[in-house]
Amino acid sequence: MGRYLSMEYIFENRDRVRDYECDLQGIVNNANYQHYFEHSRHFYIISRGVTFNELHERGIDVVVARYEAAYKVPLRPDDEYICRLRPVKDGIRYVFHQAIFRAADNKLCCTAKVDCVATKEGRLMPGLPELDALLEIEN
Amino acid sequence: MGRYLSMEYIFENRDRVRDYECDLQGIVNNANYQHYFEHSRHFYIISRGVTFNELHERGIDVVVARYEAAYKVPLRPDDEYICRLRPVKDGIRYVFHQAIFRAADNKLCCTAKVDCVATKEGRLMPGLPELDALLEIEN
Amino acid sequence: MGRYLSMEYIFENRDRVRDYECDLQGIVNNANYQHYFEHSRHFYIISRGVTFNELHERGIDVVVARYEAAYKVPLRPDDEYICRLRPVKDGIRYVFHQAIFRAADNKLCCTAKVDCVATKEGRLMPGLPELDALLEIEN
Amino acid sequence: MGRYLSMEYIFENRDRVRDYECDLQGIVNNANYQHYFEHSRHFYIISRGVTFNELHERGIDVVVARYEAAYKVPLRPDDEYICRLRPVKDGIRYVFHQAIFRAADNKLCCTAKVDCVATKEGRLMPGLPELDALLEIEN
Repeated sequence: MGRYLSMEYIFENRDRVRDYECDLQGIVNNANYQHYFEHSRHFYIISRGVTFNELHERGIDVVVARYEAAYKVPLRPDDEYICRLRPVKDGIRYVFHQAIFRAADNKLCCTAKVDCVATKEGRLMPGLPELDALLEIEN
Repeated sequence: MGRYLSMEYIFENRDRVRDYECDLQGIVNNANYQHYFEHSRHFYIISRGVTFNELHERGIDVVVARYEAAYKVPLRPDDEYICRLRPVKDGIRYVFHQAIFRAADNKLCCTAKVDCVATKEGRLMPGLPELDALLEIEN
Repeated sequence: MGRYLSMEYIFENRDRVRDYECDLQGIVNNANYQHYFEHSRHFYIISRGVTFNELHERGIDVVVARYEAAYKVPLRPDDEYICRLRPVKDGIRYVFHQAIFRAADNKLCCTAKVDCVATKEGRLMPGLPELDALLEIEN
Repeated sequence: MGRYLSMEYIFENRDRVRDYECDLQGIVNNANYQHYFEHSRHFYIISRGVTFNELHERGIDVVVARYEAAYKVPLRPDDEYICRLRPVKDGIRYVFHQAIFRAADNKLCCTAKVDCVATKEGRLMPGLPELDALLEIEN
């Protein structure tokens, strides 16, 4: 957990909990954090000029192979939150270290480690030149 | 409302509320009924041997042009429900009259009128031969 | 449709399509517009100092009785959009006239008319003083 | 992966992919598997006579502390799938070993390990008597 507080994130985006994302326990449903993390990764990649949509048209998809999340403090209706991430390359995998913080007090709410791989027409690729170049600059 | 109770539906499917579909009011979130209705239409069409996925690959999409829903009795966690529908053709529109009933007591929960049109590469089509043939048989 | 372009909206919020909100047709799934509209209404009401969460704890819920949507131009991945709304009171109903515009060219994407009613412990209320006061100021 | 094929599951439920759960890659969006797994856990627990809804009214919530998922083979529109699970107790944690198989060929699509804890008014409980009794019988 300390690891996630001190990690050097290279990207962040801010958003607000939508009421329909909360379940009857009055907190954001667990699966929605996965949506937040996904949106943050896409947002990061788009902000660097790559879009998944264009890649998909060329037959290339970046897909999640593994997803691990630890839930710390639940987000509630109307909470604003900040998603932070740091991508690293590990073999053929792009590993995104991600965390969500409550904006009001910077409390760590949820952390995730997301392993992605690039595929072309369904077959594994050793990497995606666009992403490799990006990670070289950022790290 | 009486109209929906007495209408002659030609298809039904049964399902169960998923907890994450409920919001903090403890009831199924409104937008999820639209998902239930959509799933029921697709289920109906698939059951008749047409799949949206294959149509999409031929450049044809059946898209919703208008959606009207009236909420009567809210579904709650663990409720089972039955979706019923009747499609009719009106000009170039496929109008689906749909209703959701609570399985336990056949109480009417939500009704909808969904106007769909077929498009090919984004342009309106007068109709889809597969659906037209289907509706001729069913009505 | 012209009505929605010329209407005097009193609130707007801006957001960005999330990839997971798009379906295999490559466009935002219809039910998600209902989520956008709901979030916009809540955002509006919160911005005026009322929260649904607090109301719920007092036994009061503002629920949707009717929802009508017309789909014009589909939003796609990465599109930014602007939700605009105008609430009016009609009998015991709060009617929200809402519209979503694509940010890039202000193109009208989807319009909705959402009828809400206030309930206390499940029974209809003639209105909610907080909302009535609000609408008197805004109109 | 072999572990998940040979594990002795004690519960299964069957369902069908809904089109809106698929994203523009034409496959079920990753976060939706988390929904499938959650629904399966709830379904299991309900089938044994415990409901999260009633627990919540007594101030007790069973919340997810950790979630790990590995994606093998993607589910596609119209696929039917079977969710299987085996719960074990590990300290104060209820660990659900879960897997989703494609119904047509029993292909393993996604596995998950979900660590849950019981809380009462937000504080950790050593366990939930209802669940402990259940696990003693089942294992």
